[in-house]
Amino acid sequence: MTISEVKNHFDEEVEISGFVDEIRNLKWVQFVVLRDHTGKVQITIEKSEEANKELVEIVDNLTVESTLKVTGKVMDAPKVKMGGVEIIPSKIDVTSRNMGELPFNYKDISTVNLDTRLDYRYIDLRSDKNILMFQIQSTLVRYMREYLYNNGFTEIHTPKLLGAASESGSEVFEVKYFDRKAYLAQSPQFYKQMALASGFGKVFEVAPCFRAENSNTSRHATEFTSFDVEFAYINDFNDVMNLEAEMLTYAFSKVSELYGDKIKEVFDSEIIVPKGEFPKMRLADIYKELEERYGYKVEESDKNDLTTEAERLCYKLAQDKFDSEFLFVVDFPAEKRAFYHMRDENGILQGYDLIWRGVEITTGAQREHRYEEIVKSAKEKGLGEDVKFYLDFFKHGCPPHGGFAIGVDRLTMLLLNIPSVKETEFLFRGPNRLAP
Amino acid sequence: MTISEVKNHFDEEVEISGFVDEIRNLKWVQFVVLRDHTGKVQITIEKSEEANKELVEIVDNLTVESTLKVTGKVMDAPKVKMGGVEIIPSKIDVTSRNMGELPFNYKDISTVNLDTRLDYRYIDLRSDKNILMFQIQSTLVRYMREYLYNNGFTEIHTPKLLGAASESGSEVFEVKYFDRKAYLAQSPQFYKQMALASGFGKVFEVAPCFRAENSNTSRHATEFTSFDVEFAYINDFNDVMNLEAEMLTYAFSKVSELYGDKIKEVFDSEIIVPKGEFPKMRLADIYKELEERYGYKVEESDKNDLTTEAERLCYKLAQDKFDSEFLFVVDFPAEKRAFYHMRDENGILQGYDLIWRGVEITTGAQREHRYEEIVKSAKEKGLGEDVKFYLDFFKHGCPPHGGFAIGVDRLTMLLLNIPSVKETEFLFRGPNRLAP
Repeated sequence: MTISEVKNHFDEEVEISGFVDEIRNLKWVQFVVLRDHTGKVQITIEKSEEANKELVEIVDNLTVESTLKVTGKVMDAPKVKMGGVEIIPSKIDVTSRNMGELPFNYKDISTVNLDTRLDYRYIDLRSDKNILMFQIQSTLVRYMREYLYNNGFTEIHTPKLLGAASESGSEVFEVKYFDRKAYLAQSPQFYKQMALASGFGKVFEVAPCFRAENSNTSRHATEFTSFDVEFAYINDFNDVMNLEAEMLTYAFSKVSELYGDKIKEVFDSEIIVPKGEFPKMRLADIYKELEERYGYKVEESDKNDLTTEAERLCYKLAQDKFDSEFLFVVDFPAEKRAFYHMRDENGILQGYDLIWRGVEITTGAQREHRYEEIVKSAKEKGLGEDVKFYLDFFKHGCPPHGGFAIGVDRLTMLLLNIPSVKETEFLFRGPNRLAP
Repeated sequence: MTISEVKNHFDEEVEISGFVDEIRNLKWVQFVVLRDHTGKVQITIEKSEEANKELVEIVDNLTVESTLKVTGKVMDAPKVKMGGVEIIPSKIDVTSRNMGELPFNYKDISTVNLDTRLDYRYIDLRSDKNILMFQIQSTLVRYMREYLYNNGFTEIHTPKLLGAASESGSEVFEVKYFDRKAYLAQSPQFYKQMALASGFGKVFEVAPCFRAENSNTSRHATEFTSFDVEFAYINDFNDVMNLEAEMLTYAFSKVSELYGDKIKEVFDSEIIVPKGEFPKMRLADIYKELEERYGYKVEESDKNDLTTEAERLCYKLAQDKFDSEFLFVVDFPAEKRAFYHMRDENGILQGYDLIWRGVEITTGAQREHRYEEIVKSAKEKGLGEDVKFYLDFFKHGCPPHGGFAIGVDRLTMLLLNIPSVKETEFLFRGPNRLAP
């Protein structure tokens, strides 16, 4: 039985297990707080009772963070914070022992630097906050997937080992592959499109992506989990934006329902379930309004993309203008985007960024699906043999399609008000970090 | 609207899209069969009708495998096999063109060798059978996950880039990682255990694993999708076997409900939902019974593991003895197994293999969670610095736990009676295959 279930078994004998969270060994009584991934409960041992002699000895020799299996009776204890119950044990097994002092106190990390925490991530993760963070991340991904399953999507698993350095050679990791070289996938982009060229209709994948970027920011990692969606038979890229908005709304409403109160309490963050369509604005209009409303000015030459500060201000703009936390930004200059993003007959990019809480969480687009156009587009970007295998996918018919990708770690960071993806990845990977 | 939905819109105008599956251009009439990932439908154009002039011209110039968007009315057509309906179109848009002859006829692969099919996998996947295969795989994984969610599991995403060559150096891919080396994860084993040492309780992961094995069999790949489960607070490895059996039973019952008939029709395979617990047998007893029942003899020296032939015969044995397709095999010699598998006080391995339809689909076990024991066990296997980071996980308390892994591609292969994982991976990766 998990500890959260204990309160439903009042006056019964139960068996529970967990980590020793706290020991208070007083003159007449011993208190042990036991913790598992669902909660905490107090175990109370009266020293004066003859029958408790063995138990008292066990607790006398106990160290915090050891693990126990406890058999005992659930008793009413209104004064005890943890569910208003306590356990009166009849048996305690020490199932593992903490062999020494922890490298740092994970319950108070105010003076612990992040690198130390990441060096001992297996200790750092023990905090209530971190356990909860990953439960919420798991739930978020669960319901993003559920939305897609319910809408006829097929989950695929595309290879991460590639024969060619695909999108851009410079940020790709090289692998020694028997007597030749392979490369790690930066994204499943080409292969999710291949699925559509093969007639899969609607696909998604949740998988690691690898980027050999030698940069240290709160948003970048050399390995991260990408939630990738791609689907066919769209009319234009509005269909892509609308599906993404619906998927996020669905998942957020589920997370809010299950964890809304906890998120407020533990993370001081509020999950706001979007209402209706997400607002959309043209890039040029955004710069105009940012200047008009907030006096934010940038050089003309910087206006072909969102600056980090403009992204940040988009949060305010979206709230002030649309009462929304989300903002779709459209009409980016085509030349700044990947060759496989579709342009309309006037050269206007059929793609978007999604800004949430001042950070770009998605780039999405309709893709170029016409063989002659995609070949031309690749040529213009100077891409040759390395993308030939990809161009072939479009040779024998491929329906109009589009898609997007969301970084799971970045989404978690924003949802829970965490400063960096270094903390929302289970084990962060950066240029200087490959351990543990 | 998808093509499968058309039959529910009798007498209405609909818009559908898909690939041109077939064209029959007769004297008085044109038939176009349109195909998407949900089915096929016939489009009928009467040549004599003046209003059809443009449509007739479009179809005159059409090639199979091009893609269309069609607007038309759904009409009753009892003689038409595809749902008893046909579409009388008012508009046809050619959304992409097949630019030339297919490299092979994916509808009849009897004379096409597998390598050609894999070279042009984006064509090979277009067959009804392959599309369906991946829909079933997606559904299977969906419900395996759902069972775990419903039982309090958290999904994690562990890194695939490692700083040390972990389990066994020889079969690990090496990555050029800036100015040092990294290695690709062979399995998430160490990290899913880390999650339990950190108090996550119950975790799973569905992710790629990488094995630098230079072998070509129907069951091996250098990259494959592993469904990994690990959970704490178990009493012994029977808890692990029972959870795996329950999870598979749950997922199989869902797949049977949704695709049972299709699996019979398209794959000539029957999905049998297990009833009750899966049978368990000791390795030594299996060899005894295989000899008694089927006259199968092996050298004593081969009896410390299941031979491929013994695995195959286990299918028959499980059916004959237990009326089951599944068989748990226990009591393997401890020295043949990984150092982190638990042994009891008599040295007996607390682990198992699960054999399904004559193939091992899982290795599972209780793990050694006690620091002093796991350090000793690693030392006995001659493992040193490379696993130190792993041993540290157990230093500060770790509850008893166990788990298992299932290869998604192998499971799909057996479920659908497919000869090789080369066909059940979306894009197979082997020593000689990195493309497309």
